[in-house]
Amino acid sequence: MSAGEVIKCRAAVSWGANEPLVMEDVEVAPPKAGEVRVKIMATGVCFTDISASRGKILDVHFPVVLGHEAAGIVESVGEGVTTVKEGDHVITLFLPQCKKCRVCKLDDSNTCLEFTSGSQSRQLMADETTRITCKGKQLLQFLGVSSFSEYTVLKEFNLTKINPAAPLDIACLLSCGFPTGYGGSVKTAAVKPDSVCAVWGLGGIGLATVLGCKHRGAKTVIGIDLNDAKREIAAEMGVTDFINPKEVEGPMDKYLNDKFGCVDYTFECIGNMYTVKQSLECAAIGNGVCVLIGVPPQEMELNILPIHFLLGKKLTGELFGSFKGVDEVPLLVEKYLDGKLPLDKFITHRIKLEQVNEGFDMMKEGKCLRTVIKNE
Amino acid sequence: MSAGEVIKCRAAVSWGANEPLVMEDVEVAPPKAGEVRVKIMATGVCFTDISASRGKILDVHFPVVLGHEAAGIVESVGEGVTTVKEGDHVITLFLPQCKKCRVCKLDDSNTCLEFTSGSQSRQLMADETTRITCKGKQLLQFLGVSSFSEYTVLKEFNLTKINPAAPLDIACLLSCGFPTGYGGSVKTAAVKPDSVCAVWGLGGIGLATVLGCKHRGAKTVIGIDLNDAKREIAAEMGVTDFINPKEVEGPMDKYLNDKFGCVDYTFECIGNMYTVKQSLECAAIGNGVCVLIGVPPQEMELNILPIHFLLGKKLTGELFGSFKGVDEVPLLVEKYLDGKLPLDKFITHRIKLEQVNEGFDMMKEGKCLRTVIKNE
Repeated sequence: MSAGEVIKCRAAVSWGANEPLVMEDVEVAPPKAGEVRVKIMATGVCFTDISASRGKILDVHFPVVLGHEAAGIVESVGEGVTTVKEGDHVITLFLPQCKKCRVCKLDDSNTCLEFTSGSQSRQLMADETTRITCKGKQLLQFLGVSSFSEYTVLKEFNLTKINPAAPLDIACLLSCGFPTGYGGSVKTAAVKPDSVCAVWGLGGIGLATVLGCKHRGAKTVIGIDLNDAKREIAAEMGVTDFINPKEVEGPMDKYLNDKFGCVDYTFECIGNMYTVKQSLECAAIGNGVCVLIGVPPQEMELNILPIHFLLGKKLTGELFGSFKGVDEVPLLVEKYLDGKLPLDKFITHRIKLEQVNEGFDMMKEGKCLRTVIKNE
Repeated sequence: MSAGEVIKCRAAVSWGANEPLVMEDVEVAPPKAGEVRVKIMATGVCFTDISASRGKILDVHFPVVLGHEAAGIVESVGEGVTTVKEGDHVITLFLPQCKKCRVCKLDDSNTCLEFTSGSQSRQLMADETTRITCKGKQLLQFLGVSSFSEYTVLKEFNLTKINPAAPLDIACLLSCGFPTGYGGSVKTAAVKPDSVCAVWGLGGIGLATVLGCKHRGAKTVIGIDLNDAKREIAAEMGVTDFINPKEVEGPMDKYLNDKFGCVDYTFECIGNMYTVKQSLECAAIGNGVCVLIGVPPQEMELNILPIHFLLGKKLTGELFGSFKGVDEVPLLVEKYLDGKLPLDKFITHRIKLEQVNEGFDMMKEGKCLRTVIKNE
């Protein structure tokens, strides 16, 4: 086939909320101006896809092609695209970096306004249509990516070119989960050396947060998880003290303060309102920073006592680890190639696209860190 | 009288919650080791005293001598006191600076742990008793100060020596209200030049916050208050755009974003949960910082959507403007003496100690910025 033609391929389609994804034959239109068509080589299964499939996040509409953590090869580019060409290896970016909006112009923030108010936020491309259709129906896009398809079309600023030496079925983790956790400690909190950190939830994101704390020179990294089976991988990533909350009597903040003096940084990697509250309570009076990383169900409110703020604590959070995707993901790929990011340890399962529902089930059951879907 | 003797004087005593303060003859014991007895020359009426009098803050117990914003002259010192001597002019510090605790050793935080867990937090001196008695009953201390008395006894680190050139009935504002607002913008937020700031509540604290925004070079300072009568003083302190929320149709965040692009810093100077929520909503996606300065009623929870944090906003707060009292209040006094802090403009009423209940009423009715009680 040549650029400009519609590509017929397979995709996992979500026809409605709480329905299993269905493998369908789809048509992927050629990229328009400023767009890039990508052959998806590998895509991770993220809890955000599951929440979206349940209709519990981001006000998602159906039918939609989910999937937002991917790596692939550029198949063709639309008019005016300058940063990538056919054959380039790329990582998709659910959080774009348009380099034109107010936030992109800030040095220290990454929440590009295309994400919050661009056509992406309406699950559409810039012309207010989408590129994937099935049985004559237009399928909505998800987070600017829609990678549960063999091919997809993205805006140029929703992807970044990477070193082709990186295996795409590993590098795809740099598209969402890993940076989200790792950046929480290395960028958002910018953990200081010799500090005490605590991380709630030791899934893929929490463990990447732990690794970031270790890389920043934390003295103590407390890992908190209800699942004792996480002890080993937690220690490997940098947890110095594993705590199963079931074994803690009394309030967690008293327990941690008695044992560790105080906790300088707390990271909530679950998205649960109870643990967000607890992580704020556990942050040190005066200088404690609480970073919200887990994505909670939509419209769920956080109930907290303002005294924590009056006593000098800070509550913040992030998307994608505060990394500016286009500029910084290629650097993370180099770091991986230099042997500094053990991404392979985060991949516990590998499946095919037609097994995506099983991938969802494994994640819901907490049986995996990251499941990667590999296309042929 | 000489050091070591009990001083008989007058004090306004709060015998119970929601009861008017009663002028009584009291006995003030001499200072013990590490303590200082001060003749209170002037003390401000702060809303925190009113809340305490209602039993709605800090879990206050009765009978108590309220008052915590004061300036005076050292009458005598206890054993081991080295930083002040008889005759020194001092400002009292409800937020102590012990210079020994974990937080005092941090460069960028002021919430001395004596405040949160020292005997002060139990309304007592270090020996777990107090120095003021009335009719044989021990009166509890308030915030380490108890300045609604002609004499009081404080721990050495609950006061700081100042330049005697400063009139005490003006300098007393540097004991609580003014630094609390001013420091919110100059220290806690450290407002960047050319930024857009918004301040909710234009009482004494809010106006001091406004002044701090101006001193830090803010481009726009939005002042939000239901009382149109504040327009003039607001403009004088640095408000560039006064907004009466009654005149705003639709959500405040949309209104402010449409008019000003975005708001980099928001300051809540009321202690009202609705406006805290609104000030967080109005802070800019990506880099917005929301500073909680107003003290809300005890146990009142803040209900907020976590999405604000995921989008990169920060929520923080402060006590006493993040100033380290012993070290920094004397510098504020010098700044006042240099003509850079128009403290006199914040004082709208002057009364005597026996008029303290009227002072409370005026404050409740929003009729004053600051009322100063001056002793003979």
